[in-house]
Amino acid sequence: MYRSHNCGELNSSHINTEVTLAGWVQKSRDKGFMNWVDLRDRYGITQLIFDESRSEKSVFEKAKTLGREFVIQVKGMVIEREAKNKNIPTGEIEILVTEMTILNEAITPPFTIEDETDGGEDIRMKYRYLDIRRNPVKNSLLFRHKVAMEVRKYLSDLDFCEVETPYLIKSTPEGARDFVVPSRMNEGQFYALPQSPQTFKQLLMVGGMDKYFQIVKCFRDEDLRADRQPEFTQIDCEMAFVDQEDILNIFEGLTRHLLLEIKGIEVDKFPRITYDYAIKTYGNDKPDIRFDMKFGELNEVAQHKEFPVFNAAELVVGIAAPNCATYTRKEIDALIDWVKRPQVGASGMVYVKCEADGSYKSSVDKFYDQEDLAKWAKATNAKAGDMIFVLSGPADKTRSALSALRMELATRLGLRNPAVFAPLWVVDFPLLEFDEESGRYHAMHHPFTSPKPEDMALLETDPGKVRANAYDMVLNGNEIGGGSIRIHDKKTQELMFKYLGFTEEEARNQFGFLMDAFQYGAPPHGGLAFGLDRLVAILGGQETIRDFIAFPKNNSGRDVMIDAPSAIDEKQLNELHIKLK
Amino acid sequence: MYRSHNCGELNSSHINTEVTLAGWVQKSRDKGFMNWVDLRDRYGITQLIFDESRSEKSVFEKAKTLGREFVIQVKGMVIEREAKNKNIPTGEIEILVTEMTILNEAITPPFTIEDETDGGEDIRMKYRYLDIRRNPVKNSLLFRHKVAMEVRKYLSDLDFCEVETPYLIKSTPEGARDFVVPSRMNEGQFYALPQSPQTFKQLLMVGGMDKYFQIVKCFRDEDLRADRQPEFTQIDCEMAFVDQEDILNIFEGLTRHLLLEIKGIEVDKFPRITYDYAIKTYGNDKPDIRFDMKFGELNEVAQHKEFPVFNAAELVVGIAAPNCATYTRKEIDALIDWVKRPQVGASGMVYVKCEADGSYKSSVDKFYDQEDLAKWAKATNAKAGDMIFVLSGPADKTRSALSALRMELATRLGLRNPAVFAPLWVVDFPLLEFDEESGRYHAMHHPFTSPKPEDMALLETDPGKVRANAYDMVLNGNEIGGGSIRIHDKKTQELMFKYLGFTEEEARNQFGFLMDAFQYGAPPHGGLAFGLDRLVAILGGQETIRDFIAFPKNNSGRDVMIDAPSAIDEKQLNELHIKLK
Repeated sequence: MYRSHNCGELNSSHINTEVTLAGWVQKSRDKGFMNWVDLRDRYGITQLIFDESRSEKSVFEKAKTLGREFVIQVKGMVIEREAKNKNIPTGEIEILVTEMTILNEAITPPFTIEDETDGGEDIRMKYRYLDIRRNPVKNSLLFRHKVAMEVRKYLSDLDFCEVETPYLIKSTPEGARDFVVPSRMNEGQFYALPQSPQTFKQLLMVGGMDKYFQIVKCFRDEDLRADRQPEFTQIDCEMAFVDQEDILNIFEGLTRHLLLEIKGIEVDKFPRITYDYAIKTYGNDKPDIRFDMKFGELNEVAQHKEFPVFNAAELVVGIAAPNCATYTRKEIDALIDWVKRPQVGASGMVYVKCEADGSYKSSVDKFYDQEDLAKWAKATNAKAGDMIFVLSGPADKTRSALSALRMELATRLGLRNPAVFAPLWVVDFPLLEFDEESGRYHAMHHPFTSPKPEDMALLETDPGKVRANAYDMVLNGNEIGGGSIRIHDKKTQELMFKYLGFTEEEARNQFGFLMDAFQYGAPPHGGLAFGLDRLVAILGGQETIRDFIAFPKNNSGRDVMIDAPSAIDEKQLNELHIKLK
Repeated sequence: MYRSHNCGELNSSHINTEVTLAGWVQKSRDKGFMNWVDLRDRYGITQLIFDESRSEKSVFEKAKTLGREFVIQVKGMVIEREAKNKNIPTGEIEILVTEMTILNEAITPPFTIEDETDGGEDIRMKYRYLDIRRNPVKNSLLFRHKVAMEVRKYLSDLDFCEVETPYLIKSTPEGARDFVVPSRMNEGQFYALPQSPQTFKQLLMVGGMDKYFQIVKCFRDEDLRADRQPEFTQIDCEMAFVDQEDILNIFEGLTRHLLLEIKGIEVDKFPRITYDYAIKTYGNDKPDIRFDMKFGELNEVAQHKEFPVFNAAELVVGIAAPNCATYTRKEIDALIDWVKRPQVGASGMVYVKCEADGSYKSSVDKFYDQEDLAKWAKATNAKAGDMIFVLSGPADKTRSALSALRMELATRLGLRNPAVFAPLWVVDFPLLEFDEESGRYHAMHHPFTSPKPEDMALLETDPGKVRANAYDMVLNGNEIGGGSIRIHDKKTQELMFKYLGFTEEEARNQFGFLMDAFQYGAPPHGGLAFGLDRLVAILGGQETIRDFIAFPKNNSGRDVMIDAPSAIDEKQLNELHIKLK
């Protein structure tokens, strides 16, 4: 045992106890006759004191040689501190050191090991093992563990069984984003790393394991957006003999449990809105409902005058920005420029100030009178002092631009408080979405999602209108989980593959084992998967997932610390029966 | 909700309750006017009754169409069973069915869904989702979950933090057994799948995360012996500021906790023996100590006569097989043939019967008198009624052959009772072992293992004699865990790489990040890893790990259910910048 206590637990109740501590030198202050050292470990910081008059000479002298991040072990007496520090739990005491061993020296780290470090992202990633010494990263990892344990306990207590599904699975021709693994023993053949354990969890349902979960790594070889990782972790869940209502209740329960246990926050029953409602009301399918600013559709009250821009538009739609009537012309112009950026894509923006006296002042006063504008205010739920912003154009594009503006305004107005949690369910997703590029329909979730029985007939006539028994859990503007009731009979699954443009042979080749399984008595089943990285980050009040992953990869999929991926030698390639192109 | 109860929970306390159940038809017995169906789900079996006089006609008729493994939902009344079945928890009741829905039909399964199935290994693997419906497999998976949860709870309660380390890591030229993953975004470069998270857990220690664990998949692309898998699961653990004693105590505590919680068995403090003692006493480093039969070395008491075989041997060594003096000549000859098989490799075997009257009868009576044989009996701890078997030859080979015989005899004598658990620690492993093929020393555990400080000097003079701070936990003749105190300073690590024959450049290229990390204040640390698959199998009283893995691969590394690995198409190869050789 290198220590009797850790650096976070000693307080005035330990005074006059002899203790042994071990840790890193956070900093030292040499006053000549007196030398203070802050000793740090995972649990906190404890102040050490080396005193010319009270410490042995050799120990006192050695203390002067300590550099930042040296690893030391000290023995000493807990004494009361003269200048107490109320900001840390150990602030009442210090250790008068009698013995010291330098366990390891340290060269100067490339950035400061402080909460606010001077190190940029790149250098922190290269020396991630030093970055992890910093509280923000260390605490994020501890927090992640806590969340994962709570998930496991909650689901285990409900009789869910965690089953490990394989990582070396089958590559499918559709799996353009599969990472593949050449097989040495099976020449010319490849495994794939799973993008999700989807088919395995369905097979577990066929196998009678009626409540399954797994916290599991998944892999996707795609061009990485800012906050994506090629390997990511899911809380993957599936149940048999359930309908959608059961799934929503169970996993709403899990999320509510996490919010209570981890954050101490009680939330009401989650609102449920349909996909269509979400799109019409918030312009996207993962609305942030911590704040209001619902869309008001204005076609009826804006297309009766001589304003050609609105009259030509498929959709005229506005939102009321609370208390923004005081925006200056300059601020408004800046916002108009913002929505006209290519990433947002609006061609212009109309605004209406809702004055305190109940009158309106708009950029289209030439076309619309006070009565018209009052109707707009009603439709957007604007109050005196608010500012209405109106966009127009093709419906999809316009909604999506207004959604971006809504989020931007909320950010500027401080309405996206990370300490507030507003979860909801979005249900009734479309089964299919039309892909312009390939000119055919794709599964919006995946090809195993069950259409709503009442919409089955539409598959032939109006496929885009078919709704699925599919649902997403949304938290603070992020999709944190999603799933569906699955198809569980071979006939419907075959039909589904047909509509998705699979030939019989392709379907057989890729999913034959699943179709086979469905013949042997598959129960009704469904499930969902949470993205753990994102869930943990949001619960932790952060926007970015990277600090909640111990060793993340950068945007090129590289681990800059270990320098991976890297070249492998000819001999190894030969054994794998492949060569470089 | 498809059910109000499951098929394992109803008993006489539920009589006259209306219930809804869902599950699979295990079997049905049609007596004409009466039809019994055993309904099965994950939790048990409940008997359904369809009665011509009490059930509605349509329900009664439909019940006659049910085939094995049909999935049905029934509503009915819990009634007392006339012929009670004391063997199952639901044996007091049955359900008089009033409504029935066939949720899914089933074709006849390729093997019976019974504890003792008629299906062989191959067919069970191909239809693993049906195999999982069988109790032995289902219960093994539930058992595995229970063990994993207990491990997590125990370690979490001790402040261990589970940290997920990456799966896409760096391939090393030494990593001939690495599975590799071509990178699409980094042309000509490859990730490797980890054989263990060794370096990452050490970096976490450098990062101050002083108690780490992870239940994690590891990968090894090697020719598979009977009971190995290309992907396997480890309970991977590491601690900082500890010495060997701390590690042994913590993980002995974990194992003792598992035995108590899972098996209800209290075990004493684990015996600790050295590697040298294990080899001399049991002929191998993972002795099964559920039974005795320790080796007795006989050189001193067997090389003084005119028996040339023994006199020429490096080692003469015997064991006493308890109560085997009654073996017939035929049985003895069969055993001699057994040890002469190439897998065991003995060239012959001498035996001594310890008669009830205290006299001895041996196959070498020509050379040795009663006094000699009494000394052999003393050395092997043989009692009257035992049989001593003696092998001779080169020390290593002879020990290993006698070890095989010891295990074989124990099996035949029923001494390997799977309900008995005899854990122990084997410590002081050699640091290095000589590899005949390459003509140099290799690390016995891995190159990060710390030599015992007092043996450091031997590295130059007699490397094979250097002992490591390395230890294995052994349970019932299986190594279930192993680990070591690690090197934590750059200088020793560099020295170690040198002795292992790495050039400076090779060491830098492969482990540069670790050597760098050691410069920034690495704490003393060590750890171990348990093989979860094996641990669970042994705790479950089984010899084979396969039924404790949901979807195992066969000896060629194939998943015969999903037919992986498989060919991938040209387009995908192109995107990965590789081609087949």
